[in-house]
Amino acid sequence: MKTGPHNATAASLAAALLILATATATADEGMWLYNNPPREKIRQAYGFDITDAWLDHLMKSSVRFNSGGSGSFVSEDGLVISNHHVGADAIQKLSSEKQNYLRDGFHARSAAEELKCVDLELNVLQSISDVTPRVNAAVPAGMSAEDAFRARRKVIAEIEKESLDQTGLRSDVVTLYQGGQYHLYRFKRYTDVRLTFAPEQQIAFFGGDPDNFEYPRFDLDFCLFRVYENNQPVKVPHHLKWSRNGAAEGELTFVSGHPGRTSRLMTMAELEYLRDVQFPYTLARLKRLEVLLHSWSGRSEENARRAKDELFGYQNSRKARDGGHAGLYDPVLMGRKAAAEKAFRSRLASDPAHAEADRAFQTIADAQAELGKIALRYRLLEVGHAFGGHAFGIARTLLRAADEATKSSGDRLSEFRDSAKASLELQLFSDEPIHADLEQVLLADSLTFLSEQLGARDATVSKILAGKSPRARAAQLVKETQVQKVDVRKRLYPSTPAQLRASSDPMIQLAAAIDEESRTLRKTAEAQDERKRQAHAAIAKARFALEGTSKYPDATFTLRLAYGPVKGFEENGRAVPFQTTYAGLYHRAESQKFKPPFDLPARWLKRKAKLDLQTPFNFVSSADIIGGNSGSPVVNRAGEFVGIIFDGNLQSLVLDFEYTDQVARAVSVHSSAILESLEKVYDAKALARELVQGRRTR
Amino acid sequence: MKTGPHNATAASLAAALLILATATATADEGMWLYNNPPREKIRQAYGFDITDAWLDHLMKSSVRFNSGGSGSFVSEDGLVISNHHVGADAIQKLSSEKQNYLRDGFHARSAAEELKCVDLELNVLQSISDVTPRVNAAVPAGMSAEDAFRARRKVIAEIEKESLDQTGLRSDVVTLYQGGQYHLYRFKRYTDVRLTFAPEQQIAFFGGDPDNFEYPRFDLDFCLFRVYENNQPVKVPHHLKWSRNGAAEGELTFVSGHPGRTSRLMTMAELEYLRDVQFPYTLARLKRLEVLLHSWSGRSEENARRAKDELFGYQNSRKARDGGHAGLYDPVLMGRKAAAEKAFRSRLASDPAHAEADRAFQTIADAQAELGKIALRYRLLEVGHAFGGHAFGIARTLLRAADEATKSSGDRLSEFRDSAKASLELQLFSDEPIHADLEQVLLADSLTFLSEQLGARDATVSKILAGKSPRARAAQLVKETQVQKVDVRKRLYPSTPAQLRASSDPMIQLAAAIDEESRTLRKTAEAQDERKRQAHAAIAKARFALEGTSKYPDATFTLRLAYGPVKGFEENGRAVPFQTTYAGLYHRAESQKFKPPFDLPARWLKRKAKLDLQTPFNFVSSADIIGGNSGSPVVNRAGEFVGIIFDGNLQSLVLDFEYTDQVARAVSVHSSAILESLEKVYDAKALARELVQGRRTR
Repeated sequence: MKTGPHNATAASLAAALLILATATATADEGMWLYNNPPREKIRQAYGFDITDAWLDHLMKSSVRFNSGGSGSFVSEDGLVISNHHVGADAIQKLSSEKQNYLRDGFHARSAAEELKCVDLELNVLQSISDVTPRVNAAVPAGMSAEDAFRARRKVIAEIEKESLDQTGLRSDVVTLYQGGQYHLYRFKRYTDVRLTFAPEQQIAFFGGDPDNFEYPRFDLDFCLFRVYENNQPVKVPHHLKWSRNGAAEGELTFVSGHPGRTSRLMTMAELEYLRDVQFPYTLARLKRLEVLLHSWSGRSEENARRAKDELFGYQNSRKARDGGHAGLYDPVLMGRKAAAEKAFRSRLASDPAHAEADRAFQTIADAQAELGKIALRYRLLEVGHAFGGHAFGIARTLLRAADEATKSSGDRLSEFRDSAKASLELQLFSDEPIHADLEQVLLADSLTFLSEQLGARDATVSKILAGKSPRARAAQLVKETQVQKVDVRKRLYPSTPAQLRASSDPMIQLAAAIDEESRTLRKTAEAQDERKRQAHAAIAKARFALEGTSKYPDATFTLRLAYGPVKGFEENGRAVPFQTTYAGLYHRAESQKFKPPFDLPARWLKRKAKLDLQTPFNFVSSADIIGGNSGSPVVNRAGEFVGIIFDGNLQSLVLDFEYTDQVARAVSVHSSAILESLEKVYDAKALARELVQGRRTR
Repeated sequence: MKTGPHNATAASLAAALLILATATATADEGMWLYNNPPREKIRQAYGFDITDAWLDHLMKSSVRFNSGGSGSFVSEDGLVISNHHVGADAIQKLSSEKQNYLRDGFHARSAAEELKCVDLELNVLQSISDVTPRVNAAVPAGMSAEDAFRARRKVIAEIEKESLDQTGLRSDVVTLYQGGQYHLYRFKRYTDVRLTFAPEQQIAFFGGDPDNFEYPRFDLDFCLFRVYENNQPVKVPHHLKWSRNGAAEGELTFVSGHPGRTSRLMTMAELEYLRDVQFPYTLARLKRLEVLLHSWSGRSEENARRAKDELFGYQNSRKARDGGHAGLYDPVLMGRKAAAEKAFRSRLASDPAHAEADRAFQTIADAQAELGKIALRYRLLEVGHAFGGHAFGIARTLLRAADEATKSSGDRLSEFRDSAKASLELQLFSDEPIHADLEQVLLADSLTFLSEQLGARDATVSKILAGKSPRARAAQLVKETQVQKVDVRKRLYPSTPAQLRASSDPMIQLAAAIDEESRTLRKTAEAQDERKRQAHAAIAKARFALEGTSKYPDATFTLRLAYGPVKGFEENGRAVPFQTTYAGLYHRAESQKFKPPFDLPARWLKRKAKLDLQTPFNFVSSADIIGGNSGSPVVNRAGEFVGIIFDGNLQSLVLDFEYTDQVARAVSVHSSAILESLEKVYDAKALARELVQGRRTR
């Protein structure tokens, strides 16, 4: 399944517009900015005009989940639809051993029964403006990379703070084209989000890991939330009209969502680094964690419940990365990339006006090499791979919040700037349950991983382990720390740096003990990223000059528009049809003898006879999507909701690096599948009516 | 679960008798040689005299499985009992999609129904003699390590060949005390082994990976084979008498089996290498393979069937190694080891007569460092971690068999020496089914692993991939090779080296393309291992001089005697009782809601009312065991069969490095559990009667 954006890391900050240099820009390619949509391409290919009103309505109906996914309003009464696997984190946090909503599903039959999520934040984009000149003006040429990074961070914090003060809207300056442009995104922010409906995870994620990224597919991967303000459901000005019929084969559809990250504009030096260093590290870590949690989950049903959402995340990322890594090892794909870079660089070399862009490729390679030198320690200590579980991250946030509070907003680490304060506190004071047994398992394993990666004799490892084995040290930390308690966090949050450093909490002491090294690593990473950013900006400028500005940037978890017709594909010489049906679901379960993860929830077995088995279930289209697009609405020309993206097929896993519409497909739940299930399986007629009519009718 | 010995690798060839230098040799410690049993210790501790007749009977009733495990004769008509998980490889090879004996169990109601295993070889030890003087005489001091290795290999091959020619018995010279002694083991060899009975894997391995190495436990982990000669069941001169009552709490018991490998005599340099290099590599690879096969198995029941046995092996090793690795990261355990080494070395340093032994520690550290330099390439290319699936190994065996046939037996790679010929051919011409889809999955993954480990630009990697991606190259090799067919192997086996090198089979071509590098790596590893062996021999000599010769060597998959009382242990402050019962089995299944891997086979649900639920199921004792002991008989003072070893508890996973009887326990199936199930669940009354009476009675 497609999930949220990856953590922004050193190696994720990258390259130029290489893909556009390939000879044929593929027909339906692109994750387009809302302020630069591909009007002309779509008019020519499909005879359809994107109007400003059409675009504005779709933008303001689209929702971003801070937990890493997409969604949309589907009723004027604040009803939001997203994927079950996007909502799973929130559902998990509302569940307990006795009320297992992830396993059993949830249905609020009235507003009073809707459950408030503990730390879910939704954002709705209101406007975009280009602030590139102001950002670049604050960073004069000739500054050191470290100073340039600080100057850029400072001006961005100023712009965001001004905007927040002026409009009251969440204001984020986003980096596009790897540093070629900076845009200010303003969002309406909702933090009272309540769970309205969720099917059983078993039907939402039918087929589990084995069928993940496969097609044909049978997943009812949706859930419903309702947004509140002042304890009342919000009346929203924009929502998507529901289409009962969905999309026909061959019909043009649009996807409005938040692709998390692509790497199409990376240089060869960056791609080779991904292939040779980063992907092997990431995959080894993911597989290790998957084995750990899979084994632990098997010990009891309650273990499984506690670990389920996290385990799913690792499995999902692992399958996606394995596919992406295979793409990087494909000499045909990499050959195309190399040839395009070579062709573009020879154009640069032939024109002295582009000398800076030509040099930029070497700068990027150099910066990448510098990043490579610190990458392992950076990931373990600063990204936190050495410290599994929740407690270390909380302890460090408390410590750094105190340290950063002594600085002006623009000089702080970016997550502590004023404009991010509300979101930071929402996370820090989250009521999310923290289970000591799971904390122990994760921390013991990650400390072992740390010892393996840096060696048992490393001075920092010795400091962290404090003379104990990884398991014993984890046991002590988990037992003695108090930061798992929200009231303790609230009490500590206003502390001074000195007060926190005097705390007897061993997790805060640990965070303090490594903070100097960790901050130094981050500073180095940020400086090298800044070098890359400036180099990419130079390449982007040359690219715009040589090839025009009607291009789309790499995905950055900002709202994008993608499009393409609903259509099947060919696999091993066989045609795979564009959609599946309810009948297919029952057939797949039977052929697997209903064994997990192919077992069906009891009510699906009981209600089978009542269902129209010809109802469409999932369908595929050629829209250009990636992780983070999960939950994106799929709409037709009329802007009506015909389905919801939840996955890509296996062949789509190389889209990180290169778009293809030959066999790569986005996979959606059909709008009819949702209605049929609400009406006939879940006895949720009022909700079904609200979807069809676009408002509550009680 | 405990399974067979690990592949002998560079780092497995190691150190001296350090454990014996610790102040208190723990009461029940030891995996004793049959020609040097701890008579005096047992007499003093338990007042029991081990007689020659008692020992000879137990030795000749004990059986070694070439697939890596132990067993014993339990009827004069050739009936052999072992663990289900030791027999699983053979059962899997007899199964098909339609006849899934692993899942459904198997019961031959008459001799005619017994199924001949495709490549199972059983060995029964007949005699042991010390050949140390002759081996050492062939390796004069001052030889280079490479020459010394060749000279030692040659004399060993000669001794084995002479013995085979004289006696007709399988004759193996085994290395003990890491090179301190060489003994000649002669075995009666059986190759017509037929499956008689197996329960469903679900009850044999109830609780699966989550409960693996845990206790309390409820596994009916046994199966029965019958040995044939001349198409008739063999009349064996020795078999164990069955005890219906099993062992009482506190009763002294003995274990006769084949522990695969321990590392108790390693030097600190070797242990640190294990901790810092080898275990991290091995665990990362195991977890990678576990994720791969787990995910692939989930796609269909038939996939699961094909991969089950291999997947179990990876999971089992992973859990065992994770436990062992935690021991190496335990500063308390490693501190004891370091202190013991230091104390012993100071004794050596104070006496010029032991100067050679003192220097030997540095030699071992140097050799280990040299091994470290080539370890990665050695594992990938020579051990074959780069080439998942069966085909590459077969292709290389064909190629090397031709090359080695041109040399005299003593000069060949050891697996091709004359005395190993029969066993080699049994394996090479095995009818074991080879599935192209599984071959593809394994080979694609291992070629990706190779690319990650050595880098995509490595010359050997380029040669192996031949310009393709790992997946594409694997697809081509699996599609085009013919070596999966036994008749093709038989046709190619008598070929000359030149004929094989002219073969168009791409897998044989691949094996030939890397053989020079691979053989060079092996030669280096063998020479460094020889340096370590000579150094360890010097240490062992000093150890014998200072501490006497009544010691046991590290495990080497040779027959050993262990002992200890049946007793429970304490865990997290709670007493864990010494045995479990049938009632406990049903309780565990219920508390897990019968979800896999806690589901019970249908006949276990149906027959519950007929069973005596107080029947003992599993029990624990403090005997000193390790992987390879699986299937070992547990006998009482009278030499009667009271149970069968199948596992150790989690706390036993450090036994690789150090024995403890505080909490480490060996886990066995109780003899009553076996009878009760045969009589009341499986309607196998004739077999139950044969066990009780020690002979067939039809």
